[in-house]
Amino acid sequence: MRVTVNRKAHFNAAHRLYCQDWDNVKNEAVFGKCNNPNFHGHNYELIVSVTGAINPQTGFVIDLNDLKTLIYEKIELYMDHKNLNEQVPEFKTLNPTAENIVVVIWQRLRQHLDEALDLAVTLYETPRNFVYYDGKA
Amino acid sequence: MRVTVNRKAHFNAAHRLYCQDWDNVKNEAVFGKCNNPNFHGHNYELIVSVTGAINPQTGFVIDLNDLKTLIYEKIELYMDHKNLNEQVPEFKTLNPTAENIVVVIWQRLRQHLDEALDLAVTLYETPRNFVYYDGKA
Amino acid sequence: MRVTVNRKAHFNAAHRLYCQDWDNVKNEAVFGKCNNPNFHGHNYELIVSVTGAINPQTGFVIDLNDLKTLIYEKIELYMDHKNLNEQVPEFKTLNPTAENIVVVIWQRLRQHLDEALDLAVTLYETPRNFVYYDGKA
Amino acid sequence: MRVTVNRKAHFNAAHRLYCQDWDNVKNEAVFGKCNNPNFHGHNYELIVSVTGAINPQTGFVIDLNDLKTLIYEKIELYMDHKNLNEQVPEFKTLNPTAENIVVVIWQRLRQHLDEALDLAVTLYETPRNFVYYDGKA
Amino acid sequence: MRVTVNRKAHFNAAHRLYCQDWDNVKNEAVFGKCNNPNFHGHNYELIVSVTGAINPQTGFVIDLNDLKTLIYEKIELYMDHKNLNEQVPEFKTLNPTAENIVVVIWQRLRQHLDEALDLAVTLYETPRNFVYYDGKA
Amino acid sequence: MRVTVNRKAHFNAAHRLYCQDWDNVKNEAVFGKCNNPNFHGHNYELIVSVTGAINPQTGFVIDLNDLKTLIYEKIELYMDHKNLNEQVPEFKTLNPTAENIVVVIWQRLRQHLDEALDLAVTLYETPRNFVYYDGKA
Repeated sequence: MRVTVNRKAHFNAAHRLYCQDWDNVKNEAVFGKCNNPNFHGHNYELIVSVTGAINPQTGFVIDLNDLKTLIYEKIELYMDHKNLNEQVPEFKTLNPTAENIVVVIWQRLRQHLDEALDLAVTLYETPRNFVYYDGKA
Repeated sequence: MRVTVNRKAHFNAAHRLYCQDWDNVKNEAVFGKCNNPNFHGHNYELIVSVTGAINPQTGFVIDLNDLKTLIYEKIELYMDHKNLNEQVPEFKTLNPTAENIVVVIWQRLRQHLDEALDLAVTLYETPRNFVYYDGKA
Repeated sequence: MRVTVNRKAHFNAAHRLYCQDWDNVKNEAVFGKCNNPNFHGHNYELIVSVTGAINPQTGFVIDLNDLKTLIYEKIELYMDHKNLNEQVPEFKTLNPTAENIVVVIWQRLRQHLDEALDLAVTLYETPRNFVYYDGKA
Repeated sequence: MRVTVNRKAHFNAAHRLYCQDWDNVKNEAVFGKCNNPNFHGHNYELIVSVTGAINPQTGFVIDLNDLKTLIYEKIELYMDHKNLNEQVPEFKTLNPTAENIVVVIWQRLRQHLDEALDLAVTLYETPRNFVYYDGKA
Repeated sequence: MRVTVNRKAHFNAAHRLYCQDWDNVKNEAVFGKCNNPNFHGHNYELIVSVTGAINPQTGFVIDLNDLKTLIYEKIELYMDHKNLNEQVPEFKTLNPTAENIVVVIWQRLRQHLDEALDLAVTLYETPRNFVYYDGKA
Repeated sequence: MRVTVNRKAHFNAAHRLYCQDWDNVKNEAVFGKCNNPNFHGHNYELIVSVTGAINPQTGFVIDLNDLKTLIYEKIELYMDHKNLNEQVPEFKTLNPTAENIVVVIWQRLRQHLDEALDLAVTLYETPRNFVYYDGKA
């Protein structure tokens, strides 16, 4: 019996979309107002989903306080109230689209979870736009 | 690395539930107040989910502005502020249940998306009732 | 000590916007797609707010089950799954805009509430458009 | 063509987390304030998801009124306004964590659904913590 | 220029409705399943609203971190994961209806806020039932 | 009969909190991580509330399409995907706290509305923090 446990969290950050291979004209054409060199920002809402067997003694797949702490330490402290392009190392060279952010979050959490657990991450950039990644090819 | 990109949209429409093979008594028995011949209506909330590889230059699976435009042109213009039974060709003969509407939306979008992308559609008929279709048998 | 008690409810209905004093050209110009003669529809979400003193024995301003029943009998049975223009008497001659609907709902509930209680009604026509009426001039 | 139909419901209940194999010190250490012997409680929000083929005459996978009645009779009447540990037989010996509750709900519904239908259940214990079970190993 | 600043918080608690002046038959008749002697519970969602002038240097009506700490210390620590009837002194003799809880919360916060600030409190007992108190007669 | 009509909108922006009268040490002490010189950002959700009499012919207090256009032209075009401190003139010298932003939005809209209409603005900086201004002293 494998159950999925989900925990919501959030962080606020600034970013701009920008491809280093392109000149300003092409960046502006592709990314529009998201390319604003002065940055804009979002309240990113995050859902971390962990799937595994229920421990028969605790009744838990994972202790939610442990999961909450892991999200806080590895994601919130790292990204909250930050400028993603300027202050988060992965995005020095990687464009901080929602797609790339959700993969980075997944990778940062994956390494701290037991291998018997599956991980999926959902990231809302706005209430109308959101992305999902579960590590599958 | 395949990521799912989701975009929300909505449209408002009138409909009634009605099976052309049945007489009024049976229609009333099966569909109850949803069979009201004067129609009733809903705010349909839509989530369109597109799964594919991240383009390494843009950082996008699909440009959300393109997806937003596609939903607007193929679904919103076609169904918003319409009477589904009377004004949307698919429902001249097909009962406009949430299940049938979600399949019609999926089919209308599928033909305009690259074959390398997977498509799923979620449709809320009310905040408590919603349906999902991803084209799988 | 006066406390406000709020109860949410909802109903689904079809309508069209239309002014009987005007010809079709003017109706189309003013109401646009909301004037569709085949009707469209909404999930109307309703918040009924009753303000009064707390009864020292029950701890209630009003018994929520009584309020729930009142909303069901006077509003839901009257408007749910109906065509407002065709099947709700007030809208035979009154344009069923959100503003007019919220006033009709307030009037239908007001007469059944104790005079010592204040009444306000909030009506969502869509998640982005909503109206409020409390009977004040 | 298999479509998923989802129906939301909710119930309010009291519970405490407690492992009968452990002494109080260990229970307190593992479950913290959730172990309060005087109980605490939640508004549990439930999403029941049923997947199957669309019936060509009704346009339904399952009649939502039947599904609503099934949820009411098997889950709401059984758990709403109850103390899960004291009044729901399954939790006399099973710790009422969200994980265990979602499995019990799934099992109680599964036996009343046609075998051709798939079932999944999502249970929100709080707006930030929720679990999912679909019967897969 | 007076602006209202709102902060959301929440706590989970068990309670039962019960009037000490009445026998069990009358309590059962008035409070129904809310009178369950084994308790039930809720996720209480709280909105604390503070109105005042904007400080021209900080741009704040009140520092939201101070408000968040005040809510945590005076309300969350006091009521979260508690049995309101058994463990919160005010409800030893006062029936813990939503109306009475919102007044108690208002009184506990009011004494710690500057007199130049107005206070209102909104309390959701369920997503459909909520109450409001601002200290006005 | 005065009814309030509400319209939701949103914009995404970057900002930092900073008082020009203070040195960096004091700014850091008062504003904490919100003072990050590299900026952070938010999805600002906006509710514009207009109160007035119902026009007996249209059934409208204000044409929602006109209100939607006004919000788009005066607020969204002005603030969406902008750095508030760097690119919005009012915040060259005024600290872009939620309180100050809501007053600026109110002032920008007020001048374009008929004097017979009342205006109130609610601004969500995050789902848990929001402010309200209606022009009253």
